Amino acid sequence: MAFPQAVLIREVGPRDGFQNEREVIPTDEKVRLIDMLARTGVRRLEVTSFVRAEVIPQLADAEEVLAQIDVPKGVALAVLIPNEHGLDRALAQRGRFHEVNCFLSASETHNAHNLRRTIEESVRDLETVIPRARAEGLRAEAVISVAFGCPFEGAVPMERVFAIARRLADAGAEEIGFGDTTGMANPVQVGQFFAAARHALAESVELTAHFHNTRGQGLANVLAALGAGCHSFESSFGELGGCPVPAGPTGNIATEDLVSMLEEMGIATGVSLERMLAAAAAVREVLGRPLGSHTLLAGPIDWHPAA
Amino acid sequence: MAFPQAVLIREVGPRDGFQNEREVIPTDEKVRLIDMLARTGVRRLEVTSFVRAEVIPQLADAEEVLAQIDVPKGVALAVLIPNEHGLDRALAQRGRFHEVNCFLSASETHNAHNLRRTIEESVRDLETVIPRARAEGLRAEAVISVAFGCPFEGAVPMERVFAIARRLADAGAEEIGFGDTTGMANPVQVGQFFAAARHALAESVELTAHFHNTRGQGLANVLAALGAGCHSFESSFGELGGCPVPAGPTGNIATEDLVSMLEEMGIATGVSLERMLAAAAAVREVLGRPLGSHTLLAGPIDWHPAA
Repeated sequence: MAFPQAVLIREVGPRDGFQNEREVIPTDEKVRLIDMLARTGVRRLEVTSFVRAEVIPQLADAEEVLAQIDVPKGVALAVLIPNEHGLDRALAQRGRFHEVNCFLSASETHNAHNLRRTIEESVRDLETVIPRARAEGLRAEAVISVAFGCPFEGAVPMERVFAIARRLADAGAEEIGFGDTTGMANPVQVGQFFAAARHALAESVELTAHFHNTRGQGLANVLAALGAGCHSFESSFGELGGCPVPAGPTGNIATEDLVSMLEEMGIATGVSLERMLAAAAAVREVLGRPLGSHTLLAGPIDWHPAA
Repeated sequence: MAFPQAVLIREVGPRDGFQNEREVIPTDEKVRLIDMLARTGVRRLEVTSFVRAEVIPQLADAEEVLAQIDVPKGVALAVLIPNEHGLDRALAQRGRFHEVNCFLSASETHNAHNLRRTIEESVRDLETVIPRARAEGLRAEAVISVAFGCPFEGAVPMERVFAIARRLADAGAEEIGFGDTTGMANPVQVGQFFAAARHALAESVELTAHFHNTRGQGLANVLAALGAGCHSFESSFGELGGCPVPAGPTGNIATEDLVSMLEEMGIATGVSLERMLAAAAAVREVLGRPLGSHTLLAGPIDWHPAA
């Protein structure tokens, strides 16, 4: 199995992780944690979401967070945009971030629960949102949720996912993320999926894997995706995250576990494991509970295997 | 990547898991949990250890456990044997188990800490123990600890591990287990290791992977081992376990996470995930604390991906 020499990681904890926390985290704590993450060497960082405050009160401080964070150059900041109204709010903060992430689901039932729209309606929305964002000089990622299986509908055919992805790419998305939103993907499926996706979509479109560790299989899915040519991943410090629809107890893959494994494999991430562990320890203290991350408990490997 | 159609799993929780629990579990609770595990469909079950009670008080009730458990036919019961004295104790219980598991470490420092012997002394001990066990009609597995890296010495050359394995196989071990005792293995290393091991050892010797999920990478290592032809694994319900030397906070790979992933991949385990989850929930209640297992929190996947 051939692996890439380097991968890109987008840290999504401040958005995907925080939005699943019931107790609202004070803005100054969010800012402190984002500033720590931005100094780990990670090159992509999703910092907040412009969803309506009634829907996700946790992220109601998007404007304040963007105004207060202090992020070194070279770190691409992303914000989540649910719709055109969210884009309007985001554009009022232009200059403070670099990427928009839009999303929809690959199953009608999940999309209805999460966005109260049909998939066709959501695609049409994004066909407006993405070009507007691009016209403002922003990079656009579109994430397709439940791309590997839906907790309501079960099987999700790959071709349906790729058909949605093609329309979003045609609308201007430079990167398509495939979300295993409730942790239903397995490595055989993931390997087949990314091999097929590379043929189904134009070479210029970046393909990103967004795995959850719901059943402990997150890093095995990363390995399968790597073997199928994927070299862009999203993860969350401390293994924060989950899915609000339906609510679940376990989160995204932990960035520190991902970095530990990849670096041990000789695949460059650019991320300092030590700094990422410090950020994960800091968020554990803020949340005041044990987190799912394993490397956070065990610490980094001090010794390395024989060549 | 080609995967086997079926794998064998040895559940080691009642030995490898329990021995890492500080508070002694009452014998009747152990018996109840072992009886549950024996009805999950798992075909190999390590139930206790004949180490000295002063060394591991948790397993001082080995004789009582063997006498009281009620295990269906078809489940091969293994006991851990540290030395010839342990074998004598075990043989006094002959007829109550089928396999002995012996062990030593691949690094001098770990072996000195764990067994107070040189590797050569330990190999010579096993060259007595294994033939004696075989002469009694018992199957013999030998596990080589820290085979993928040592927390004291770091790198462990594969050739050193294979040289030890060959002597144990020559002594009569039908199965060699390779232990990633403190979770230092990565998938690139594991793939190379098992591919080389198959050439280094006679075809008749069964090769078993014993991974820990110390840094969340356990199932990724399973995937790499599967791809290199390994089809025998050891795991622990609830993700119990760890390593007494040095003491660590995180355990073996969780049997329920392993079964969930393999079955979703279309690889038969013979294990009922539902019953394994019930056993893991039962041990969580006995121990009275959250466990590392993910599927135990999330529950099984109800829906399956498109073919």
